[in-house]
Amino acid sequence: MRSSGGSSSMMRILFAVSDMAPYDIAMRFYTEYLTFKTTQLREYINITPQVEEVLRKSQMQEGMILVSAMHITAGVWVNDAEDGLIAGIDEWLDKLAPFRREYRHHRTGETNGDAHLKSLLVHHEVIVPVTKGKLDFGPWQQVYYAEFDGRRSKRVIIKAMGE
Amino acid sequence: MRSSGGSSSMMRILFAVSDMAPYDIAMRFYTEYLTFKTTQLREYINITPQVEEVLRKSQMQEGMILVSAMHITAGVWVNDAEDGLIAGIDEWLDKLAPFRREYRHHRTGETNGDAHLKSLLVHHEVIVPVTKGKLDFGPWQQVYYAEFDGRRSKRVIIKAMGE
Amino acid sequence: MRSSGGSSSMMRILFAVSDMAPYDIAMRFYTEYLTFKTTQLREYINITPQVEEVLRKSQMQEGMILVSAMHITAGVWVNDAEDGLIAGIDEWLDKLAPFRREYRHHRTGETNGDAHLKSLLVHHEVIVPVTKGKLDFGPWQQVYYAEFDGRRSKRVIIKAMGE
Repeated sequence: MRSSGGSSSMMRILFAVSDMAPYDIAMRFYTEYLTFKTTQLREYINITPQVEEVLRKSQMQEGMILVSAMHITAGVWVNDAEDGLIAGIDEWLDKLAPFRREYRHHRTGETNGDAHLKSLLVHHEVIVPVTKGKLDFGPWQQVYYAEFDGRRSKRVIIKAMGE
Repeated sequence: MRSSGGSSSMMRILFAVSDMAPYDIAMRFYTEYLTFKTTQLREYINITPQVEEVLRKSQMQEGMILVSAMHITAGVWVNDAEDGLIAGIDEWLDKLAPFRREYRHHRTGETNGDAHLKSLLVHHEVIVPVTKGKLDFGPWQQVYYAEFDGRRSKRVIIKAMGE
Repeated sequence: MRSSGGSSSMMRILFAVSDMAPYDIAMRFYTEYLTFKTTQLREYINITPQVEEVLRKSQMQEGMILVSAMHITAGVWVNDAEDGLIAGIDEWLDKLAPFRREYRHHRTGETNGDAHLKSLLVHHEVIVPVTKGKLDFGPWQQVYYAEFDGRRSKRVIIKAMGE
């Protein structure tokens, strides 16, 4: 995206300025979308490799990456990649925000009221810091997509912003 | 905010540079505050139009908008604009974080301990991605202000950061 | 970090441009890490002074500061600095996400399953807006580090991004 020239680069910024659109000089934005269609109603998917891939493509050294579910019955969190823990989280969420036939939301014909509550509980997005070209994570941090109402096409946006 | 001229624009950046304050060239920041005074103790308000208005004024094409409650007894979330769901969320929050006379916080004379817990549960802020000049939302995503201790003046900050 | 000169500053940006690395002109990034080793298993620490210190060092006027736990058994929240409230939050978290011997995660030999759930409940990070060189907080907002599995070394990243 960037040229390595000397004077030609200088020309480039002057040209950009005269255009009033010198954006790519200082900041980089890079956006990708993931699409999921899970086979289970509830499913938890480690998407850290996808976030790292976005970082690689963005060529960003410093900044932040937003990972945000685009649906209101899904979540995104950062936690451990340990199967027993994931199973425990699923049980716990289903206890705090259980399926109930009588949710008012179900009068619309929907049956996924619990999925909305589970999404609120874990939140639908995280910000991942980027330092020196790496996801600046602690030793066990992994990004998960949490599907609470699956078996249909759902999307996540990954947007990198930095330089 | 930006002029459309050629050489005059170039002059402008050179001047900015000599000032060491060439901020508006690359990045835009735009901040607004909303003030609420609800009639109910708990109330849920769709503020997506206000977030879109901030985006419009910022003239931002790429970036992120932070929407953050400035009080510790309120929340901000992204979910569906369906009245039955909102009523269900209210009931659910009041079950998980109910009013209790005996909260230790109430020894200070306050009576809103439950409002603090509800705020922690749903979180007090969200980041909305902006792509190609639009809020980059899925089909049903709406930004809500959640008042848990109303009938007095409360504020939300909306800060756009991008270009 | 910035010089106050006129033409020498202009030279600086031109040089930067020819280098294709004019980053510090428009955007500032500043990152620090806090390390905690609590004496209690669960402990809640007001880290607002540390966040303000990072802001001061960053010399940022406009932007956002990410405060994010780097461990999966800790949280970061914004709420009131009132001891009774903190004690109430601790009791409430322990009710919604209690210690249970039988968590599946414990089959790995771990005993901190509840700490993972508490972390998910309160979230592991916040974004603090910065306006006119100040943390743009309401009257009672304070940043807390919440340790749910302490007595060992844990880290928090504070990353400022703005100008």
